[in-house]
Amino acid sequence: MLRSRWLLPGAALALGAGLGAALTRRRAGADAAEGLLGRLPVLPAVAAAGPAALQGSAPAELTKYGLPGLAQLRSRESYVLCYDPRSRSALWVIEQLNRDTLSGASERAACDFQEDDSVHEYHRATNADYRGSGFDRGHLAAAANHKWSQKAMRDTFYLSNIAPQDPHLNQNAWNNLEKYSRSLARNNKNVYVCTGPLFLPRMEADGKMYVRYQVIGKNNVAVPTHFFKVLILEKESGEIELRSYVMPNSPVDDKIPLERFLVPIESIERASGLLFVPNILKRTSNLKAITAGSKR
Amino acid sequence: MLRSRWLLPGAALALGAGLGAALTRRRAGADAAEGLLGRLPVLPAVAAAGPAALQGSAPAELTKYGLPGLAQLRSRESYVLCYDPRSRSALWVIEQLNRDTLSGASERAACDFQEDDSVHEYHRATNADYRGSGFDRGHLAAAANHKWSQKAMRDTFYLSNIAPQDPHLNQNAWNNLEKYSRSLARNNKNVYVCTGPLFLPRMEADGKMYVRYQVIGKNNVAVPTHFFKVLILEKESGEIELRSYVMPNSPVDDKIPLERFLVPIESIERASGLLFVPNILKRTSNLKAITAGSKR
Repeated sequence: MLRSRWLLPGAALALGAGLGAALTRRRAGADAAEGLLGRLPVLPAVAAAGPAALQGSAPAELTKYGLPGLAQLRSRESYVLCYDPRSRSALWVIEQLNRDTLSGASERAACDFQEDDSVHEYHRATNADYRGSGFDRGHLAAAANHKWSQKAMRDTFYLSNIAPQDPHLNQNAWNNLEKYSRSLARNNKNVYVCTGPLFLPRMEADGKMYVRYQVIGKNNVAVPTHFFKVLILEKESGEIELRSYVMPNSPVDDKIPLERFLVPIESIERASGLLFVPNILKRTSNLKAITAGSKR
Repeated sequence: MLRSRWLLPGAALALGAGLGAALTRRRAGADAAEGLLGRLPVLPAVAAAGPAALQGSAPAELTKYGLPGLAQLRSRESYVLCYDPRSRSALWVIEQLNRDTLSGASERAACDFQEDDSVHEYHRATNADYRGSGFDRGHLAAAANHKWSQKAMRDTFYLSNIAPQDPHLNQNAWNNLEKYSRSLARNNKNVYVCTGPLFLPRMEADGKMYVRYQVIGKNNVAVPTHFFKVLILEKESGEIELRSYVMPNSPVDDKIPLERFLVPIESIERASGLLFVPNILKRTSNLKAITAGSKR
């Protein structure tokens, strides 16, 4: 083996003898460094606010050269999104749906998928990454949820709101779940929709648990193993109802009732690293969680 | 197949016919929901500050039920850390080393590995997760870097500052890299050390790129494929020198010179989703990046 099979962009990795790999070196240093030094500093606005907001016992001096990464929030017409620069997609996206946001004349045909240039180029997905990959550019916040404003709809086409999605899933069962979200929005005061990717482990032949997912394109855009969608329904009565779904990123028979994909919110909270219920309980104690086993 | 092989804690996943999986349902809903409703809301301080700091065009109403996740910073005596609730470990940890922090009488024997109870229990690693896993509890910020204060040293034993590490690597080549960091700190004004995990893709037999990593214990603590360490040297002359290393999370022959593990900082920035150089360039233009190909 002349080169490591591990990919570290722009570098050949030295691997130990324990891996039996021959060692390689590559003179990539000087050029890369010069390129970097010529670059403009680009940091998200939230990161700039970070060190000031930092509390605790570490001396301020410790963060003299900045914090290398923080939550990258994007607040747009139709959604708030938290970007994951490592996977080149979102950790989560929240939308608010109601009768007003669903009505309007905005056209999907007037929208194009576009790079999110608010994300550093090192961590940004491009249309080229998806080309020929076999995956759809799957919306997290759905385009058809935002007919009320052409700009709001267009904002859903940023590739930061997109993840590689199995075409059959995207066009069938997942699409049905999006339609169902809209039907709930028509029959309730508001529906808050939070959508995101999951990377779930499973047991392999050696009896150990592994997370394994494909990455596509030059920028290694992560292909989620599953997607979650959490619906927070505000009813006219004031009651809050929670419905949380998980679908695998693979063809799903759209004849299977959507309720089969209901999972306890705790499962999504554990697997995603996110928390929903504590936030909701700050606003209301009138919360009902609908799961596959619940009576309705 | 009676049950999905994908693990979603507390839930059986419905999989589409495309996977050929039989569908299963499990009555886990009601109990889980009641347990959740009885729980106290626990959110990191930084997340609480989030919505107020949010700028952009989304209406405030959109985040009425909170943001499900944000950067979880921990500022402690010896380091600043950004926690990754999905992997149950840190995204990065920064320390400041100099002659003062290296001297002192603090004892490693007086320290125990401890759960970080500032992290929500859903997203927290425990000592039990590591037991019998075959992996060491590898420090990101190294204990021996903080002899100046027993509390500072003890803070490095929080499991949020720990990642599953190959024992041979931890005790040999990686230990040598830590020792080398300390020797640089003795011969320079300051050394800022940033350490973290990497999850690098590689090509599999089908010609596609995959990220694959083990998870251990009940809490699915992610086992990194590699580790990075970025050293920002403040020289007495005022010059800043950058040295960035990557080692595989596997046995590494400690006779291999450390400089073989130097990689361009850009490679770490791309793979980790972090940025170092833009932050440094805000403080100085007198930056020299040392890589395997550089002359010294």
